[in-house]
Amino acid sequence: ALERSDMVVTIGGLGPTEDDLTKEAVAQVFGRTLVVDDPSWQRIVERMRGRGRPTPNNRRQAELPEGARAIPNAHGTAPGVLLEAEYPAQGGSVPRVVLCLPGPPNEFEPMVRGFVAEYLEAYCGSLGQRTVLLSRSLRLAGTGESQVAHDLHDLIVGGQNPTLATYAKPGDVEVRITARASSSAEAQELLLPVEEEVRRRLGRWIYGADHETLASAAIRDLLALGRTLAVAESCTGGLLSEWLTATPGASGAFTLGAVAYTPAAKTTLLGVDPRVLREHGAVSAEVAEAMATGARAAAGSTYGVGITGVAGPTGGSELTPVGTVFVAVAGPEGTTSERAQYGGDRALVRRRAAQQALVALRARLVSAQGLGTSPG
Amino acid sequence: ALERSDMVVTIGGLGPTEDDLTKEAVAQVFGRTLVVDDPSWQRIVERMRGRGRPTPNNRRQAELPEGARAIPNAHGTAPGVLLEAEYPAQGGSVPRVVLCLPGPPNEFEPMVRGFVAEYLEAYCGSLGQRTVLLSRSLRLAGTGESQVAHDLHDLIVGGQNPTLATYAKPGDVEVRITARASSSAEAQELLLPVEEEVRRRLGRWIYGADHETLASAAIRDLLALGRTLAVAESCTGGLLSEWLTATPGASGAFTLGAVAYTPAAKTTLLGVDPRVLREHGAVSAEVAEAMATGARAAAGSTYGVGITGVAGPTGGSELTPVGTVFVAVAGPEGTTSERAQYGGDRALVRRRAAQQALVALRARLVSAQGLGTSPG
Repeated sequence: ALERSDMVVTIGGLGPTEDDLTKEAVAQVFGRTLVVDDPSWQRIVERMRGRGRPTPNNRRQAELPEGARAIPNAHGTAPGVLLEAEYPAQGGSVPRVVLCLPGPPNEFEPMVRGFVAEYLEAYCGSLGQRTVLLSRSLRLAGTGESQVAHDLHDLIVGGQNPTLATYAKPGDVEVRITARASSSAEAQELLLPVEEEVRRRLGRWIYGADHETLASAAIRDLLALGRTLAVAESCTGGLLSEWLTATPGASGAFTLGAVAYTPAAKTTLLGVDPRVLREHGAVSAEVAEAMATGARAAAGSTYGVGITGVAGPTGGSELTPVGTVFVAVAGPEGTTSERAQYGGDRALVRRRAAQQALVALRARLVSAQGLGTSPG
Repeated sequence: ALERSDMVVTIGGLGPTEDDLTKEAVAQVFGRTLVVDDPSWQRIVERMRGRGRPTPNNRRQAELPEGARAIPNAHGTAPGVLLEAEYPAQGGSVPRVVLCLPGPPNEFEPMVRGFVAEYLEAYCGSLGQRTVLLSRSLRLAGTGESQVAHDLHDLIVGGQNPTLATYAKPGDVEVRITARASSSAEAQELLLPVEEEVRRRLGRWIYGADHETLASAAIRDLLALGRTLAVAESCTGGLLSEWLTATPGASGAFTLGAVAYTPAAKTTLLGVDPRVLREHGAVSAEVAEAMATGARAAAGSTYGVGITGVAGPTGGSELTPVGTVFVAVAGPEGTTSERAQYGGDRALVRRRAAQQALVALRARLVSAQGLGTSPG
């Protein structure tokens, strides 16, 4: 890679173990030795305090190729490495940059967003080249990728700058608009009319933008409305609560979650009438609704959501085969429920069920404030 | 790739959208046209039933390069493609195999484990080559990767067949032993003594093997002991319940989960004394213990787990900064709690807190039956 590229980025291999050899390889290619970087070593000792004695392997993590610079790692022991050096290529030596970044995503991502982004911007500036690529993602639920591709066909095929592309995960479609310009402001100006056109055509399905999720959008809308939510889950086993509370500030809108896995838990925790359980079965619209109203009552919240279903791989019956899910929403406007049938394994059925509940909740929140169709 | 390889595998680009061009590219390289595969089209129509009308884009998903074979996709609309054909290389035409697999993991993985694994075995058999690579992963919690690498140093450096390698995620270390032989039985025989040696040295940290997780191992051990578990979560927001219930059959051991996000929920749902909350604060050993005993009592379960902490990014104080976590376990032997301080973002603090609770629970289960130190 150094033969043909000005800059080479490596990811991983900075850990403390025998097969972490990235720095060794880089040092060897440039004919340098590895030397301990004292500030990095101090940071490692500091980090390890109270977690056991640093081993010789930890000391290796503080080594850098001679002349390289350590990139501080706020989330792990291994610093990154920046080496700017002459590389002995075939036609004579050439200036090269090597960046060695840590592999764990929670260490890698902050380093890229921080040090590396700044370094690259300065590097490109020094070459007199500056092109800004700006992307905007609109996120849709309740529709499918091929329907979206169909509705945006002319924009996808005709789009040069910005370009449009769709990406899909089960239950979730992303429309990504990407503009290229010489400044952020200019790119933004190219993006905006296309975003507005996509919103005009598909606004009813768009729940959020960029890094938002169905759950974070629900928390955002609940907070904006000053409303609260309680959740009662059976087959999803806490997944919906986990998604909702993953959003910082969720405690302003999310009051409680109950994972009522057994009939007894449904009765005790949520006040579901044992007769309803007996007559309709645990996987039924009636039980989903009783769970939703029970959670709402227990928390005194604006809304209650109830989910019950058969996630599989076993537990299905003729009437409620594996993949059957009932979700219910209870709120000031009353209680409603819907049934769905999903394919896929246990994990996928659970994910789809939690998504379905959020789509059903979103319908309530949209009608409560005309949310979700305006741009921005 | 076709110039230098007998077989080329592509992943992705089989979807319904304009930029899904894998089959077009393969057809073009081999000078073939795309033709609709009727059985695949029937399967797509069948799958779409009740989910809206198939679009022309869906029809493209049923197209195959002429002479190719569709690989049925049980989890999505796009079939995979197997093309065995002569490739017009520079030195004359050569036999080649192209496999086009779908990108979504839930479609890709079953196809690889099913059709592709079988096809590859037959393909290698037809070449008279057969080498079995067998891996065994031992999973450890409560210790660190560099400690493990240190304790296994001689096996890692000296190991030729089997080889040993360590992999780490926050709070979790994997030791992978890999043997190479001409049969599974022979590879197994090479693996076993090394696995036993690793267990002898590190058994107290090993919670499971291969695809087990801390949570699935907890469910396995609870079921083996005929014991049950209830969980009360605050900062983890349902994550621990979600992990536990992700295991098929969890309902035999997991009774209920309570996500008590607000003080009111802790009081109502779990019977935490409001005075304890006032005196010690929501993030305290006392509240973690009260949550654990409250969940245990509400469910009438053998064990109760309580988690409270500050996941961040805000909400920290001088006494309980962001990353402070208390976990408690209540059981027949009494109630214990421990405090930890984690770095990292909200998601990582939550994950570490849930892991910590499972490690604490594991200590109880190990002492309840001497589990976890025997091989197998």
